[in-house]
Amino acid sequence: MGIRTDLAIEARELCQKDKNGEIPGVKIEEYNDGDIKISNVRIIDEIGEKTMGKSIGTYITIELPEFAHYDSYSMEDVSKVLCNELRLITKLEDSMTAMVVGLGNWNVTPDALGPKVVSKIMVTRHLKQLVPDSIDEGIRPVCTIAPGVLGITGIETLEIVKGIVEKIKPNLIICVDALASRKMERVNNTIQIGNTGISPGSGVGNKRMEISERTLGVPVIAVGVPTVVDAATMANDTIDLVIDEMANQASSGSEFYNMLKSINRKEKQKMIEEILPPSVGNLMVTPKEVDMVIDSLSKIISSGINMALQPALNLDEINKYLN
Amino acid sequence: MGIRTDLAIEARELCQKDKNGEIPGVKIEEYNDGDIKISNVRIIDEIGEKTMGKSIGTYITIELPEFAHYDSYSMEDVSKVLCNELRLITKLEDSMTAMVVGLGNWNVTPDALGPKVVSKIMVTRHLKQLVPDSIDEGIRPVCTIAPGVLGITGIETLEIVKGIVEKIKPNLIICVDALASRKMERVNNTIQIGNTGISPGSGVGNKRMEISERTLGVPVIAVGVPTVVDAATMANDTIDLVIDEMANQASSGSEFYNMLKSINRKEKQKMIEEILPPSVGNLMVTPKEVDMVIDSLSKIISSGINMALQPALNLDEINKYLN
Amino acid sequence: MGIRTDLAIEARELCQKDKNGEIPGVKIEEYNDGDIKISNVRIIDEIGEKTMGKSIGTYITIELPEFAHYDSYSMEDVSKVLCNELRLITKLEDSMTAMVVGLGNWNVTPDALGPKVVSKIMVTRHLKQLVPDSIDEGIRPVCTIAPGVLGITGIETLEIVKGIVEKIKPNLIICVDALASRKMERVNNTIQIGNTGISPGSGVGNKRMEISERTLGVPVIAVGVPTVVDAATMANDTIDLVIDEMANQASSGSEFYNMLKSINRKEKQKMIEEILPPSVGNLMVTPKEVDMVIDSLSKIISSGINMALQPALNLDEINKYLN
Amino acid sequence: MGIRTDLAIEARELCQKDKNGEIPGVKIEEYNDGDIKISNVRIIDEIGEKTMGKSIGTYITIELPEFAHYDSYSMEDVSKVLCNELRLITKLEDSMTAMVVGLGNWNVTPDALGPKVVSKIMVTRHLKQLVPDSIDEGIRPVCTIAPGVLGITGIETLEIVKGIVEKIKPNLIICVDALASRKMERVNNTIQIGNTGISPGSGVGNKRMEISERTLGVPVIAVGVPTVVDAATMANDTIDLVIDEMANQASSGSEFYNMLKSINRKEKQKMIEEILPPSVGNLMVTPKEVDMVIDSLSKIISSGINMALQPALNLDEINKYLN
Repeated sequence: MGIRTDLAIEARELCQKDKNGEIPGVKIEEYNDGDIKISNVRIIDEIGEKTMGKSIGTYITIELPEFAHYDSYSMEDVSKVLCNELRLITKLEDSMTAMVVGLGNWNVTPDALGPKVVSKIMVTRHLKQLVPDSIDEGIRPVCTIAPGVLGITGIETLEIVKGIVEKIKPNLIICVDALASRKMERVNNTIQIGNTGISPGSGVGNKRMEISERTLGVPVIAVGVPTVVDAATMANDTIDLVIDEMANQASSGSEFYNMLKSINRKEKQKMIEEILPPSVGNLMVTPKEVDMVIDSLSKIISSGINMALQPALNLDEINKYLN
Repeated sequence: MGIRTDLAIEARELCQKDKNGEIPGVKIEEYNDGDIKISNVRIIDEIGEKTMGKSIGTYITIELPEFAHYDSYSMEDVSKVLCNELRLITKLEDSMTAMVVGLGNWNVTPDALGPKVVSKIMVTRHLKQLVPDSIDEGIRPVCTIAPGVLGITGIETLEIVKGIVEKIKPNLIICVDALASRKMERVNNTIQIGNTGISPGSGVGNKRMEISERTLGVPVIAVGVPTVVDAATMANDTIDLVIDEMANQASSGSEFYNMLKSINRKEKQKMIEEILPPSVGNLMVTPKEVDMVIDSLSKIISSGINMALQPALNLDEINKYLN
Repeated sequence: MGIRTDLAIEARELCQKDKNGEIPGVKIEEYNDGDIKISNVRIIDEIGEKTMGKSIGTYITIELPEFAHYDSYSMEDVSKVLCNELRLITKLEDSMTAMVVGLGNWNVTPDALGPKVVSKIMVTRHLKQLVPDSIDEGIRPVCTIAPGVLGITGIETLEIVKGIVEKIKPNLIICVDALASRKMERVNNTIQIGNTGISPGSGVGNKRMEISERTLGVPVIAVGVPTVVDAATMANDTIDLVIDEMANQASSGSEFYNMLKSINRKEKQKMIEEILPPSVGNLMVTPKEVDMVIDSLSKIISSGINMALQPALNLDEINKYLN
Repeated sequence: MGIRTDLAIEARELCQKDKNGEIPGVKIEEYNDGDIKISNVRIIDEIGEKTMGKSIGTYITIELPEFAHYDSYSMEDVSKVLCNELRLITKLEDSMTAMVVGLGNWNVTPDALGPKVVSKIMVTRHLKQLVPDSIDEGIRPVCTIAPGVLGITGIETLEIVKGIVEKIKPNLIICVDALASRKMERVNNTIQIGNTGISPGSGVGNKRMEISERTLGVPVIAVGVPTVVDAATMANDTIDLVIDEMANQASSGSEFYNMLKSINRKEKQKMIEEILPPSVGNLMVTPKEVDMVIDSLSKIISSGINMALQPALNLDEINKYLN
């Protein structure tokens, strides 16, 4: 039935492995850049696609070092890793126009990451068109849009993006979005880059409205960060942990142990649904300093994207241009 | 050479009148609704168009009563007048989809009027499409977009709006924008409704990028409020006032009087350009409480538009839906 | 050892009752005003104080009807109930000066309730002093302060409030603060009024820094709303629910049932501490639309306080004054 | 009668000089640090005080180089100059506690400079008191307050500050405030440091409510930046420029020339009052990008103050601490 999570790294953890500890149809590579851990998960065929619940393609995960949000040097390191990975996953030629799309709802702090990132992108397309002499030749034309969400505009995000793409015909789209994680320790600490597009507003989403090369005819790179855990997911996972812990503590083979072991996923899910009030579906779990963290993340990601799109400039030159 | 102002009411004041006090090619009607003054300026032919520096069409001006921003009853009265005038100038049938476009830069308070208005529009198009049974049949499908400005997105506003219009094919577009006035007493106290479209970011603008029925193939109603005076305009007008006042005080026929009378518009303009530092072009004049006033105006205008678009609902029902 | 919760209504639920279902030293009264439920918990002696973990005094709880945040009529009803209860719990004479203190951190949305409320209070003290003739005689002098939190100012909230109180000598202090609840269904749906003061930043807090008549020499009324649940509390309570549910489903008398029944509070607490990562202490659970809800709550509470403090004015007059 | 301006540098320009081009009772020194121009105006006796309309004391003016708001290196240079000048004008010993006061109204962008600066000050007093071992010994205890304005709180700013000062007994107060300039080219480009205190909300103000060593018993350093020009001042100055320009162009000795020369300051003032609508008093002139500029200024000033107060740390360490 597939695994519902935004993150390939989580899908991988939840998947059945074969006897070699591998997932059929999935290639995994892990490496470090300083204290930043990078995973590269490639889903290479339909078996991998079905097992992981994610489209064939590449998913790169960057794990932020501790305190990255509080340290400008560390933030810059992460931006550089993001820049490198973006350059590897895209094939950008100098003349190509890029469009950066900031998905999400600017009125809900943890969902505002996309709009915040695009507000810090170096926008140049209009200058290249209107005053080409005033701007260095090596600078790539870049434009941005924050299309809002269905509840704000009454228009599917894909319709907005597609309408604009057909007018301005960019060569590459980079979508930035806030994701949901299943694990609290991943929130705000993981950047996922993928080349299979993105479905606004859902873990799995419907294919019809996904923002991808398939629907837009232009390569789409998705950059996402988990910024919340659903309260229901958190309750769910807590219960799993408790049952496992109780089983650990019970003597193996006892009635209690067997009972605990016999509680299957479906029964637990049913129990949770009976216990938790329906309003919990509307709750989210975030860190208390969520405003500060989203601000810091939007700087890290916009710097990474700006550097990837403007190889002729260094970060200082970009920042000077932006202010 | 035409008159540069966003407001038809100002163009009219600045125009040469004929001996009957009329402007050729322009019909004017004025009436009151309670303490709200309404002017209807119709430019009926190319002579009027050339004289007024504005396209053939209808321009309605609503003058807010004093203290309208501070009194919720008075605000509601203005919303109702706006609703009535919008219904008169448009021919809306029940099944028609409307799209409300909030022009302007959300980062600059006096230019944020359009985006603020659309954030208070009752958005229903997605509900009519996705969950039609959950929503009353009499409710019109309405969607919104705040396309930003060229400097933010790198994309001409018209390109964004046109791309979306071609996808969702609305039957009517209502554009809301902040305008510039020549007179301080008009700032934030005048609502102009026109059926000739709007050129983002300019008093007269270039035809190529105007948002209008001509460029979009859909009727476009523009709702605008002057929210700033250019500092250069203010300096200019102050000087006019002073020279007139000095002439008034000088004895008619004296050398001083004649001198003053002989200073023509061009000379004054040249003098001002020599005197004022170039940075003044980047200055604007606003009331100190501009944040509060823009907030109040956005409520007045969104209520007027919501009532005009949803005749099956009263203002209380609309507000309940919105929150 | 006392019960750690900000809400008297929760302390009461968690307390050991005697055989009549009563708590020694605690008097409870419940009544309805329309669809608004009101509870009045009076802690009358040291036994009640010890059992409840709260000071001797009166604690009134107003439960908001469903959808109160989305309906301006319902919001006004709650404001009126709050106004009535505030008048009953305070003994205000016409000439008395009131000071409204908005506790909490304006940078953290769910903690910003206090500062948001004071921004909507009708401030009159300076007018009564500087331009007494411009203001109606029946209007009470009211002033406000939002002192921030220790991490922002480096100063204990009590020091700031006490310093100002000694200068301006108000006759009554109303403190507004965001609280933490143990139950998700109470979040943003409960207003607690108490006459025993408040300890900024803690469920129980230290006596030394509490804002109360004892420390300030002026009666202090506290108005609080639970706006978050600690993620750890939520995890904790979920586990309780699960264990209870599993016990319900096990056959009474079985080994499993007995095991579950024998898990005591301390063991559960220890298990949770072992399972949950320490970072969970920094997480909070809020509704997704927390910005909108805090805005709505701040209107409800400020209207209630304004009406209570200005009996000579009705709500329309107060709102007109405010804008 | 004294000269009404917030800036010593403007008072100096408007003053009558003696035949040596000097102002009696006033010593002036000017120097450069890179491309930053610094003026030091010392008013040394009562004659200087009366002539300049400012108290006896030292007034340092730092003129920002062009584009300082858009260039992080240039911003840092200005912060360093500010730091040096603050160290020269204050006599700080290591153990002294400093309190930074952010004056002004956070709801009015150009008046929000003070509150924005204090939000970026490194606050340490509470750590030195509560967890002294967690913080380096060389770090000075610093606390902050943004007391709001009379119209927001109903309390004179001095009362709030004095109340807190009496409780926490700082050894030095640094007040940050937005000022008004008479000249558009000075707006946002000039930092004034003075050791004579500040009168919130006025060019000259009333002595009774000034925040100064006289009223507080603690040295008070004022840091101010002109962020607006009154629209009336701008109109006024424009008229002066025009009359001067017309006189320049008239042939010396002609009736017109003599007329223009004979218009005295009082007559001009009277003319302006007759011409300009009273609402102009409520208007201000600001740059269009005022939000961005105030943000940039608050970074420059907070960095300067942080470096001056924490000589044991460099700017990177301070920024790491702040985030």
